[in-house]
Amino acid sequence: MVVYNFSAGPAVLPTEVIKRIKEDLPSFDNSGMSVMEISHRSNLFDEVIDQAQQDLKELLQVPDDYHVLFFQGGCTLQFTAAPLNLATEHKKIALLDSGHWADRARDEASRLGIEVDVIDSTKNLHYTQLPALKDLPQDTYDYLHITTNNTIEGTAYNRLPKTGNTPLVADLSSNFLAQDYDFSKFDLMMVGAQKNVGIAGLTIVVVKDDLIGKAKNLPSMIDYELFAKKNSMFNTPPVFAIYVAGLVLKWVKEQGGVKEMDRRNRKKSDLLYDFLDDSKLFTAPVMKQDRSLTNVPFVTGKPELDQELIQQASEVGLLNIKGHRSVGGMRASLYNAMPYIGVEKLVDFLNKFEKDYWGKH
Amino acid sequence: MVVYNFSAGPAVLPTEVIKRIKEDLPSFDNSGMSVMEISHRSNLFDEVIDQAQQDLKELLQVPDDYHVLFFQGGCTLQFTAAPLNLATEHKKIALLDSGHWADRARDEASRLGIEVDVIDSTKNLHYTQLPALKDLPQDTYDYLHITTNNTIEGTAYNRLPKTGNTPLVADLSSNFLAQDYDFSKFDLMMVGAQKNVGIAGLTIVVVKDDLIGKAKNLPSMIDYELFAKKNSMFNTPPVFAIYVAGLVLKWVKEQGGVKEMDRRNRKKSDLLYDFLDDSKLFTAPVMKQDRSLTNVPFVTGKPELDQELIQQASEVGLLNIKGHRSVGGMRASLYNAMPYIGVEKLVDFLNKFEKDYWGKH
Repeated sequence: MVVYNFSAGPAVLPTEVIKRIKEDLPSFDNSGMSVMEISHRSNLFDEVIDQAQQDLKELLQVPDDYHVLFFQGGCTLQFTAAPLNLATEHKKIALLDSGHWADRARDEASRLGIEVDVIDSTKNLHYTQLPALKDLPQDTYDYLHITTNNTIEGTAYNRLPKTGNTPLVADLSSNFLAQDYDFSKFDLMMVGAQKNVGIAGLTIVVVKDDLIGKAKNLPSMIDYELFAKKNSMFNTPPVFAIYVAGLVLKWVKEQGGVKEMDRRNRKKSDLLYDFLDDSKLFTAPVMKQDRSLTNVPFVTGKPELDQELIQQASEVGLLNIKGHRSVGGMRASLYNAMPYIGVEKLVDFLNKFEKDYWGKH
Repeated sequence: MVVYNFSAGPAVLPTEVIKRIKEDLPSFDNSGMSVMEISHRSNLFDEVIDQAQQDLKELLQVPDDYHVLFFQGGCTLQFTAAPLNLATEHKKIALLDSGHWADRARDEASRLGIEVDVIDSTKNLHYTQLPALKDLPQDTYDYLHITTNNTIEGTAYNRLPKTGNTPLVADLSSNFLAQDYDFSKFDLMMVGAQKNVGIAGLTIVVVKDDLIGKAKNLPSMIDYELFAKKNSMFNTPPVFAIYVAGLVLKWVKEQGGVKEMDRRNRKKSDLLYDFLDDSKLFTAPVMKQDRSLTNVPFVTGKPELDQELIQQASEVGLLNIKGHRSVGGMRASLYNAMPYIGVEKLVDFLNKFEKDYWGKH
């Protein structure tokens, strides 16, 4: 059975990428070794990592004064790394509380004894819209932290907040390379790879050079300066995950880059949102101006009916549409590798489910 | 060409494991998804991670009061994690300086402001033998840190130091499951997977329950208590790397477990050491009582000749025998997945190289 995997992450990869991974086993590039067995100090791997960095910078169209760094530990470790590396002057950061992952960033920074000012929060609205940034006081914060796309709540910044001279640090994990931004507006981007750039176990940090080197004597594995100097190879990097990311980046380039991904993802998510908004059974709770292109939560309002729907969907190959345990209902993640036909199948299924429901009620 | 990969890590994997990874693409366990695309919150992955933990405990034959935790960031991150989690009473640790990685552990702990007493060092002997532990003062240190096998220097503890009541914390990365120990003597084992347990990007920590929960308010990604509570899934774990580790652990069990690996590795390393000791051209610099089963450094004493040898070896498929840049010469890593025939081929090659050399000199 052909399946469509709507998982929020780890998530579907392009079929061409899976095919290539399989073809590269057991011998990568005629080396007689798989990519899992090659030394990170080899020429073979140098080519892989250098090409991935180059492709990423090309896709983001950021100037030369950005470094692409590869870490481990997810954005959760970056929630520790970013404040330790950057919050050196004011020892105070600002944060827009847009949901679970923004709150996690707040929590990790707070544990370090760094002051976190939550400038605005939409918690009391169940995060169905985004917090706003009015005038950010200048020369007060080492940076502003935002989450561009809220995986669980299904919101995304369609316009970036204006921070003046305060650096903008963003967790882009769930709409990175899937929604188009002027990426040069970010001073630091942190990205968990397992949604749009590959597999779990790789964290990408794209950081402006002038933010590097502010802190000294940090634990090595979160030291931006050290990682920049050692080309992300102070110790053994996650070789296979970087190789997969390289394949995905190449695929995004071949598809037409971030603008084309954005166009396709709008088309995919419009199809689903339009259906949900017209439906008498389903509700998409997020305010229209803040809706995510990549994560679409929806509910029937009846938990048992949601459960039945998720089960039936799974039986016809529409997998992992269960909402996050903290919000319930359903969620369809429409990352870059999800084809349009997958969303069509989902909408057809939901349509039929609704008709059957009204037939019985 | 059949190649033999003597890389120190990332290193050769069992051919059966590579074959299985390939077979599991593009659909893992008839799910229609590859293992790289499945959610870490799925039943599919629960089985993978639970089985890996169970197999590892079985292989180590440790009692029930040990937790198996999966981290990211290598032992370098554990060099930060272990002192922050464990050095809470005396805020002081003891360390045996047996080489590069022991010194790295010292450095990372020192950065945290934790006092590190280097009890003994063999640095002045170029680490060609191991530092000794005489009487460790009791009730003085939160733990003693050792490196059971020194990947770069080629030494290994064949008998574990007696620490009395002081917990023994060990970095076993390069001889884990390759050399037999009474693993219940360790209070904490830290292991980078990319040598004997799979691919880079996974760090295994096996820790006694009574060492968990001593520290509060740590960064989540290094918090042993949190990882124990969340079964290593506080955030997205490196799913693919855990899957590969599971395959390798299953393979080690099928081969006969750690005792059998130890027996085979002794046979492999004896073959190479015996040749080197008999040779008039090559020297194995490590004292016999401290020699590693898994990493065998050797030199000709002539850097240009070493270079020529490494090149010629590579041309006949004996790959990655270049020594670490800090010590030069050659190094053959004979991890579990290196078959006996690979070592035979290497010895044959070295033998022929030596004969050719004496023919010309």
